[in-house]
Amino acid sequence: MARSLKPSLDWLLILVPISIALELAGVEGLPIFAVSALAILPLAGLIGQATEQLALHTGPRIGGLVNATFGNVTELIIAVFLLLDGKPEIVKASLTGSILGNLLLVLGLSFFVGGLKHEEQEYNARSASVHATSLVLAVTGLLMPALFALGGRESFIQREIVSVSVAVVLISLYIAALLFTLVTHEHLFRTPSEDEEPSWSKRRAIVMLLVATAFVALESEFLVGSLEPALKTLGLSELFVGLIVIPIIGNAAEHSSAVLFALRNKVDITLEIAIGSSTQIALFVAPALVFISLAVGHPMDFVFSTFEVAAVALSTFLVFMISSDGRSNWLEGAQLMGAYLIMAISFFFVETL
Amino acid sequence: MARSLKPSLDWLLILVPISIALELAGVEGLPIFAVSALAILPLAGLIGQATEQLALHTGPRIGGLVNATFGNVTELIIAVFLLLDGKPEIVKASLTGSILGNLLLVLGLSFFVGGLKHEEQEYNARSASVHATSLVLAVTGLLMPALFALGGRESFIQREIVSVSVAVVLISLYIAALLFTLVTHEHLFRTPSEDEEPSWSKRRAIVMLLVATAFVALESEFLVGSLEPALKTLGLSELFVGLIVIPIIGNAAEHSSAVLFALRNKVDITLEIAIGSSTQIALFVAPALVFISLAVGHPMDFVFSTFEVAAVALSTFLVFMISSDGRSNWLEGAQLMGAYLIMAISFFFVETL
Amino acid sequence: MARSLKPSLDWLLILVPISIALELAGVEGLPIFAVSALAILPLAGLIGQATEQLALHTGPRIGGLVNATFGNVTELIIAVFLLLDGKPEIVKASLTGSILGNLLLVLGLSFFVGGLKHEEQEYNARSASVHATSLVLAVTGLLMPALFALGGRESFIQREIVSVSVAVVLISLYIAALLFTLVTHEHLFRTPSEDEEPSWSKRRAIVMLLVATAFVALESEFLVGSLEPALKTLGLSELFVGLIVIPIIGNAAEHSSAVLFALRNKVDITLEIAIGSSTQIALFVAPALVFISLAVGHPMDFVFSTFEVAAVALSTFLVFMISSDGRSNWLEGAQLMGAYLIMAISFFFVETL
Repeated sequence: MARSLKPSLDWLLILVPISIALELAGVEGLPIFAVSALAILPLAGLIGQATEQLALHTGPRIGGLVNATFGNVTELIIAVFLLLDGKPEIVKASLTGSILGNLLLVLGLSFFVGGLKHEEQEYNARSASVHATSLVLAVTGLLMPALFALGGRESFIQREIVSVSVAVVLISLYIAALLFTLVTHEHLFRTPSEDEEPSWSKRRAIVMLLVATAFVALESEFLVGSLEPALKTLGLSELFVGLIVIPIIGNAAEHSSAVLFALRNKVDITLEIAIGSSTQIALFVAPALVFISLAVGHPMDFVFSTFEVAAVALSTFLVFMISSDGRSNWLEGAQLMGAYLIMAISFFFVETL
Repeated sequence: MARSLKPSLDWLLILVPISIALELAGVEGLPIFAVSALAILPLAGLIGQATEQLALHTGPRIGGLVNATFGNVTELIIAVFLLLDGKPEIVKASLTGSILGNLLLVLGLSFFVGGLKHEEQEYNARSASVHATSLVLAVTGLLMPALFALGGRESFIQREIVSVSVAVVLISLYIAALLFTLVTHEHLFRTPSEDEEPSWSKRRAIVMLLVATAFVALESEFLVGSLEPALKTLGLSELFVGLIVIPIIGNAAEHSSAVLFALRNKVDITLEIAIGSSTQIALFVAPALVFISLAVGHPMDFVFSTFEVAAVALSTFLVFMISSDGRSNWLEGAQLMGAYLIMAISFFFVETL
Repeated sequence: MARSLKPSLDWLLILVPISIALELAGVEGLPIFAVSALAILPLAGLIGQATEQLALHTGPRIGGLVNATFGNVTELIIAVFLLLDGKPEIVKASLTGSILGNLLLVLGLSFFVGGLKHEEQEYNARSASVHATSLVLAVTGLLMPALFALGGRESFIQREIVSVSVAVVLISLYIAALLFTLVTHEHLFRTPSEDEEPSWSKRRAIVMLLVATAFVALESEFLVGSLEPALKTLGLSELFVGLIVIPIIGNAAEHSSAVLFALRNKVDITLEIAIGSSTQIALFVAPALVFISLAVGHPMDFVFSTFEVAAVALSTFLVFMISSDGRSNWLEGAQLMGAYLIMAISFFFVETL
């Protein structure tokens, strides 16, 4: 993505030292929560930029792999800190929320503003369809263990075995989809190239990636540490934060890019960001967290609530319907956002899923 | 719609004075129920005719709006009387039943008889797709509050807030879809015009609309008042009446038009009647009743049963599958009617949803 | 199907006399279970071959009918013996398992190996779509009674009435679909003909059909009789056997044909075998078993578990998505198999549905 297309959030980087100062000063609760949340926005943007620059150096195939692996590193880091803090339910909610946010809010807003400017926008329906199929697999992976656990008679070990096995299958299918789009059938998915030259050296890209990631980790630690008192002050449930707030923090930089590409009538890139990111979370980040959670000794299972499964299933179906014709307009955008709103309203009043 | 295409039910108007006489004579139960139900059929037909004549006077854009607003006025009136009688569950069932009846029974019968006469019938798949997407939004609006209420721990106030909020979102999306099809992208939805001249004066259309509506209100009052004793005599559950009987009464006139247009190979108009009517009920009539119910002091929430949500979701998916190719045949009609039959059979034995 | 395309399992016929000898020698449990299970494979293959030969003698229309009726006779026979043994739950699980196995495992493996050899394979999307619609009807027929029974207040008689009525509707729709594809719209479904000459005489085909069917019945009797001790030895639940093991036994011969046709780039025949077989089980074998079960005095209802309904619904949706473009590749095959694996893993740990 061209750097010029990104709204600069760099000035928010000033919040990084401020958050450190606040933390050292012993401030707790909402102030530190708010400052660290906002500080993550420009850092996530830097990670995205560094990843893209690195991808430009490595050529499209490896670049695709780099993007596919580091694309959601911010969510991954926040999730690990939440796991370490013993909050697997919020992690699971934030995974669901990221998928919903990308499929409905980001794609909806992009289609809407893109559709206000352009009467109708066209894109490669084929690529959308591969992603949609991956999402149905994710729904299968979410639904089957959820039903299995409905009986409530399964033991902890059974839950873990099912979770790990499903995670292995989903990651394998993620790798298979990468092989398909980057190797065996790569010619079907070439998006119109930008002929872009990297503006950062390879070395600079790697250093930036590492530094930004380190700071995201630091801010995530502040964020998670101040979560509980902040929620009390705000009167929000943990689940609402997991489903709505954290995904917005983790994806803000990406989201603005998606919308800007839609305005420039490059909806293929918008779709790649929004749907691609959902697929990545469902088939890569979520299963990876099952393994990481075991490694750090705070096991998170892969058993999601009916609410979450239903929301992801409906969103997947809606995106499939809307994108199967390879065209978008403002109404489709409004419809996706409307679905997000209905879900957010219902989530708001649910205390436990 | 051309008047000549309608099977005349006008002779049934004789039942209007008969019902009044029976009511004055103090007759109760099944006789008055049956007479007022049958009397509504020609009155609903008159409302439809008056609406169309009015639409012909106002031009396609305002005409579309008039149709979209008055298209389901009969159902709306019956629903208001049921609400006043403290029967919100029957109202909700009748909304679900109207959607199912239009999507499966009316569309199915139309495709079936149209397909017996014509080997294959073609229509604008685009228009069907916009409606199908609207229906998925309706399913989202039905499903999310239903899941939210599954826990059973929500308060009355929470239920009302969720119901009203979801209703606001759905009505907004209904207006958005009207803007799209009547204003911003109107050229995509022009159905082959009939070049029809209004046969009624504007004044006559308005007077007829008002008079027929007033009589529908009167007959609805008789119908609702005699509902309970009539059900006892017939041995039917309230829910079966809400899901199957009331929707058939409210839509009979429309239904016969839909079938006649299919026979004349004008399936676009059939779809507009059948699917359009479902969309209207889901995104306009149902949310409007949430507000009306608050206004009349008999609040109806927007929390539907699993049964109802599942039936609407399946019907939506079936219609999406069948209509996405822009072609219909008799088998598709039989399949839609078969799905309706399966649902009706299951509903018959359910006492409470 | 050309005989040469079938991997010969005929040498396994040696297990038929062995199983009889073991049975006469009073052997019980796992040995007799394993031998009779393996003996069914070549017998089912012979039934398939005899059916095709018979179909070649009778012309395409009657041939289609013959195939549609005898195509799943092996499953039907095993099911009847399970019913007689008082195991309706295993029968229902084996029906679900057959549908899932055909839709996900067989189609998945075929697309996968076909896709490894051919970059992209094309087929008649139309035919796939008719089958997919039939499957959605099957899902409706599975879901509605399941929801109806969720309340748990229905009487045995009500359960039976709903089951029989739904079975009647589904069989009627099966006959309607046959009429459509074999009579009224036959020209749309002609698959590229093989111009094949029957290699068996009509008489030989009929005799083989009868003899093989008789032996399948014998082996099914052995299989069902040794089921319980064998399961104890293997540590498998009855449901896992019903969902996974029995469907594989009943369909092995068919399955290998499907894969071989995919390798030969005749994906239309693969689809006909895999999806067609699922449709047949859902709309013909399952409803037929409801009637047969009444006739033999061991009534089986048509009320399936949430787990089963969800698995069939997801598989149907996945196949619809993947097949709606009329093209397949190895990734789609891998995705279908992945979904099967996720379901099998979850089923493995469920003891009762």
